[in-house]
Amino acid sequence: MLEPFVSPKAIAIIGASSTPGKLGYAILQNVLQYGFPGAVYPINPKRSEVLGLKAYPSVLDVPGPVDLAVIVIPSQFVAKVLDECGRKGIRGVIIISAGFREIGSEGLQRERELIRIAQQYGMRIIGPNCLGIIDTLVPLNASFAATMPDQGSIAFMSQSGALCTSILDMAKPQGIGFSRFVSLGNKADLNEIDFLEAWADDPHSSVITAYLEGITDGPRFMEVARRVTKKKPVITIKSGTTSAGSRAVSSHTGTLAGSDRAYEAAFKQTGVIRARSVQELFDFASAFARQPIPESDRVAVVTNAGGPGIMCTDALEQMGLCLASLTEATRQKLSEHLPAAASVLNPIDVLGDALADRYELAVEAAANDPNVGAVIVILTPQFMTEIEKTAEAVVRVSQRSDKPILGCFMGEANVGPGIEILNKGGVPNYQVPERAAAALAAMWSYRQWLEQPEDEVPRFEADRESVRRIFEKVRSSGRVTMSETEARGILQAYGIPMPRSELARSAEEAVEAAERIGYPVVMKIASPDILHKTDIGGVKLNLLSASDVRDAFDLIMYRATRYMPNAEIWGCLVQQQVAGGREVILGMSRDPQFGPLLLFGLGGVYVEALKDVTFRVAPIGRRAALEMMQEIRAYTLLRGVRGEKPADLEAVADIMLRLSQLVSDFPEIVELDVNPLKVFDQGRGALALDIRLVLAA
Amino acid sequence: MLEPFVSPKAIAIIGASSTPGKLGYAILQNVLQYGFPGAVYPINPKRSEVLGLKAYPSVLDVPGPVDLAVIVIPSQFVAKVLDECGRKGIRGVIIISAGFREIGSEGLQRERELIRIAQQYGMRIIGPNCLGIIDTLVPLNASFAATMPDQGSIAFMSQSGALCTSILDMAKPQGIGFSRFVSLGNKADLNEIDFLEAWADDPHSSVITAYLEGITDGPRFMEVARRVTKKKPVITIKSGTTSAGSRAVSSHTGTLAGSDRAYEAAFKQTGVIRARSVQELFDFASAFARQPIPESDRVAVVTNAGGPGIMCTDALEQMGLCLASLTEATRQKLSEHLPAAASVLNPIDVLGDALADRYELAVEAAANDPNVGAVIVILTPQFMTEIEKTAEAVVRVSQRSDKPILGCFMGEANVGPGIEILNKGGVPNYQVPERAAAALAAMWSYRQWLEQPEDEVPRFEADRESVRRIFEKVRSSGRVTMSETEARGILQAYGIPMPRSELARSAEEAVEAAERIGYPVVMKIASPDILHKTDIGGVKLNLLSASDVRDAFDLIMYRATRYMPNAEIWGCLVQQQVAGGREVILGMSRDPQFGPLLLFGLGGVYVEALKDVTFRVAPIGRRAALEMMQEIRAYTLLRGVRGEKPADLEAVADIMLRLSQLVSDFPEIVELDVNPLKVFDQGRGALALDIRLVLAA
Repeated sequence: MLEPFVSPKAIAIIGASSTPGKLGYAILQNVLQYGFPGAVYPINPKRSEVLGLKAYPSVLDVPGPVDLAVIVIPSQFVAKVLDECGRKGIRGVIIISAGFREIGSEGLQRERELIRIAQQYGMRIIGPNCLGIIDTLVPLNASFAATMPDQGSIAFMSQSGALCTSILDMAKPQGIGFSRFVSLGNKADLNEIDFLEAWADDPHSSVITAYLEGITDGPRFMEVARRVTKKKPVITIKSGTTSAGSRAVSSHTGTLAGSDRAYEAAFKQTGVIRARSVQELFDFASAFARQPIPESDRVAVVTNAGGPGIMCTDALEQMGLCLASLTEATRQKLSEHLPAAASVLNPIDVLGDALADRYELAVEAAANDPNVGAVIVILTPQFMTEIEKTAEAVVRVSQRSDKPILGCFMGEANVGPGIEILNKGGVPNYQVPERAAAALAAMWSYRQWLEQPEDEVPRFEADRESVRRIFEKVRSSGRVTMSETEARGILQAYGIPMPRSELARSAEEAVEAAERIGYPVVMKIASPDILHKTDIGGVKLNLLSASDVRDAFDLIMYRATRYMPNAEIWGCLVQQQVAGGREVILGMSRDPQFGPLLLFGLGGVYVEALKDVTFRVAPIGRRAALEMMQEIRAYTLLRGVRGEKPADLEAVADIMLRLSQLVSDFPEIVELDVNPLKVFDQGRGALALDIRLVLAA
Repeated sequence: MLEPFVSPKAIAIIGASSTPGKLGYAILQNVLQYGFPGAVYPINPKRSEVLGLKAYPSVLDVPGPVDLAVIVIPSQFVAKVLDECGRKGIRGVIIISAGFREIGSEGLQRERELIRIAQQYGMRIIGPNCLGIIDTLVPLNASFAATMPDQGSIAFMSQSGALCTSILDMAKPQGIGFSRFVSLGNKADLNEIDFLEAWADDPHSSVITAYLEGITDGPRFMEVARRVTKKKPVITIKSGTTSAGSRAVSSHTGTLAGSDRAYEAAFKQTGVIRARSVQELFDFASAFARQPIPESDRVAVVTNAGGPGIMCTDALEQMGLCLASLTEATRQKLSEHLPAAASVLNPIDVLGDALADRYELAVEAAANDPNVGAVIVILTPQFMTEIEKTAEAVVRVSQRSDKPILGCFMGEANVGPGIEILNKGGVPNYQVPERAAAALAAMWSYRQWLEQPEDEVPRFEADRESVRRIFEKVRSSGRVTMSETEARGILQAYGIPMPRSELARSAEEAVEAAERIGYPVVMKIASPDILHKTDIGGVKLNLLSASDVRDAFDLIMYRATRYMPNAEIWGCLVQQQVAGGREVILGMSRDPQFGPLLLFGLGGVYVEALKDVTFRVAPIGRRAALEMMQEIRAYTLLRGVRGEKPADLEAVADIMLRLSQLVSDFPEIVELDVNPLKVFDQGRGALALDIRLVLAA
């Protein structure tokens, strides 16, 4: 599908110019200068020759076949030449031109027209409003970037063309090379998901990186990402994380930014590694591109300086990694060969006067230690330090080892040549230990993702028909919210346990119901129009006798008719009063990008005051359900403190999974809260006490 | 005091060598090469000339006066030459030689000998075991570093000599200059506090930076830092923050690492800015050294690219800063001069084709806007971008403005020359927006520190004599822990409110006490030997009548004698039972470095399961006490949720301050817990229900 972009034979530059300073000049110049091996056809109706090549008035005039076109002309003329591209049989088009969706409704119209034309001819489009693409394998630089990156195994796509220019400017001096480099622009046709899929099977790309402001199709992104991340690491920046940031997104590209919590959940569920800055993106990518993924989280640190060794240790621990305990054999070996003052514990301090040989011995010993999963080599440029020879030694050990070895040669002027040797030898270098530790932590989390078996989404038996009927009834009465009775019907259809409950239309019916259920009971107003029952005094607890029940019925009816005179009143619900148990909340809201977003938290103040909640995109499997519980800070309270029994987490997981199925089966549910769900001790289950459900209008 | 180090007239290099590769060669070479303007005397008993200078067998043979000596000879000979330095009248000595405290007890002996000699002659020592010092103002490079940094206004000291070499190697290419640069070594004599004090009044240093592994004298550090930070910013890395890291510290320098929470508290209380890596240290220092401190937290972002603008917005919000709302006048001005497609809201998007003039206009307009406290200027190297001219424009605006302007020119190869112009023009540059935002956040927190009035430590009337008597009694009976009765006596002496309570030696006394106090009452075993009363069933609540009290007395006595047969039993405490209120915990433990460390947290699960607590070093003022309450995550619960009244925070603060005074008055208290302190609604006070107090053995 992306064939014309990755192996074009002949390329037309529509809008090619011979005037330096014009984009059409820069692009043609880049195509030629960086060695595109195929035919190049400048298209320019006003000239017969551009940059020494014969120019044609239109692609239709080009004698031979053309498979890729770059369009760089004013937006109002793009549709016409795109149609010509179609007629010419061109399969791929990169539209550089701006003036589309990003400028408002007129531009959006124009962009839709392009899509229509492309679909008519079966063409694929990158852009519009983009910098172009660079492919170091073809090689092809079909962009107006000021440079050509080195070849490497990092594939990169960006929703910001300007950011591409910065990254290219940083990459070369930092020794970062790319395989594919794509400026996505407005993503009118091809988007991040298409490239994710294409690059998953690209043997030249070992890491996929991206700068994204929004994701075009959340569910499909998740489906594809889940698959791709099992083949190779996907690292992405997702900007617009904060509310202020989101405003900037909307004004910038018109992308509807999904809430950051949904992105966070979606990335977690699909193994996508999130980077928090461009620096972090390439810190991570360099490690993944050049070093094996660690098999354990135990790290050995080799250093010629105590201070940076401590900083590294601090950082590792903060990142959730740990210092390896070296085996006796390793310590023995180090003791034999290092000076007496050296530390043969981890961090291994080879001392300030260490030459390259001492480093090589220590790094090799560390890498060979079965307790060690990864090695960080710290070097400070001290008086006798052999910077370059040490770099060579580290590269040698790295090439012999199947464990990740990261460099932390700290410095720039004198250390620079050493860093270059590391870079050339496939050992990424980090200027400070904290960045090396963060890169290792990303690798370790990826290892864990790789080894995780798939989290199967279970399928429970459920009475969808009942639910459908209830929804029809609700809608046919012009409502979007539900009475408790209706909501109970829905939970029941999905097998979610609730306290016993009956609807009573009179005080006498209420007493009968209470006798059947057993005292104490709770009574609540039953009305499709009253959502916040306690606010009008529509809930009474702790009713112990028939006379309590009668009084409560009359009082609730009086209040309901008095405070909500227009509400439809069905009577009172009489319910089993539930004693004990811990309160949790389960919920769902619809994220505009990813759909059903499940929430879990401890009830009461933990949700409201401490905001101690966590999210997943539905549907989820049992592992995700259990993970959600473990993620909240108050998890210890569920597990039990001070000799308390643990809560019945399996029962909660079960209910969460059933809700996950419910909201997946019925996209018309836009909001749902089970609050509280009372969870009893292990083995004793859980009961949904109250439910709130809102349908799409 | 530091005179000989900052304005030496004549310097002796003891151990000067003419053999390249020796430290004594490197140091002499550095002194000469980097232009020390005074007299230089190589001291070497084996040579009559070193590097073209006349050499002397001993400093005693030098004809003229000498005020500074550098010693770089094997450790066993240092004492002898130090004594000669003393006799020669030398005032300052830098001891490079290693082989002292860092190698164990033998070295420690040698180090103590040095101190003795120095004190005898009134000499001051830097080191031993250090890299030396560099002073760009003298200029003097009395170190074996491989380079001389540029002159600048950052003063730096480091407890790791090796780290110095890395920092020097990074600094020059990154445009970072220093005034003073000191490798502290083992801090046998001069330490971080001495330099903090000296640099506070150094007109050539505008920022003080440090890498520290431990602090020599916590209380004095705090006293000095509190003063110095009001004059100029102090930024420090304190490594060994985690438990694993702390292990590395001990094996490295033998410094006893104080717990990180104590450091965190001490830095917060004294306005010291903490950096988390060397990168952050210089990111912050560059901003402080070159730009004014912002007057507000409202930031304007000027950018030629949407994506980085969003990333910057995200970062600002995450750092607790915000985007400024531009005034109507500013927006008007921008609208008039920028193209229609530009964004005149904040971030101000000057568009990808912006030349230097458009940047200058926008940056100037932003800086002049009264709503703006600081400006970040983002540049990506796009097709038409005038990198260098834009840098010049930013420098011009910065020089006219009294607001901080930070650069975020993103790139390296092509952007490099622009960054250099910014650097030379006093505008620090950050490669990614996240780092610029972090630097601004550090500046803003410093501004808040500067404007904070001093937090006066109040002095309450207290009955110290009673406390002293109780402690004497406890100690004379060979105990370090206290009975509740004794502990109550102590709280009472410091005016801390408690429930009414009486000691009863018999069931009848208990009933009499209960009648006086009023039912319901609580009863607890009274024994100096039983600290965990509930564990043996030694506490009974909710006693409503005389017969309840009698039963409880007998039961508690039975259990105490059965489960703790050897405990001394005094009887039972009969106490007023306190109903309602929110539970908090106040505590104190002694930090080995900083002394009394106060703790505050919500009681119960919030402390035990959620570890939601905060710390301060005592003594504290009222603002700190109130801040502690606000810092915990569960603060909302104290402030009141769902229409609850706020808790009596002033009463809690009052009690915290009284405890602060108590633990400051009596250093022999090593641990103290008031748990729970029951806090009632605003205006209704608080009561200390239980207290645990441990004295030094």
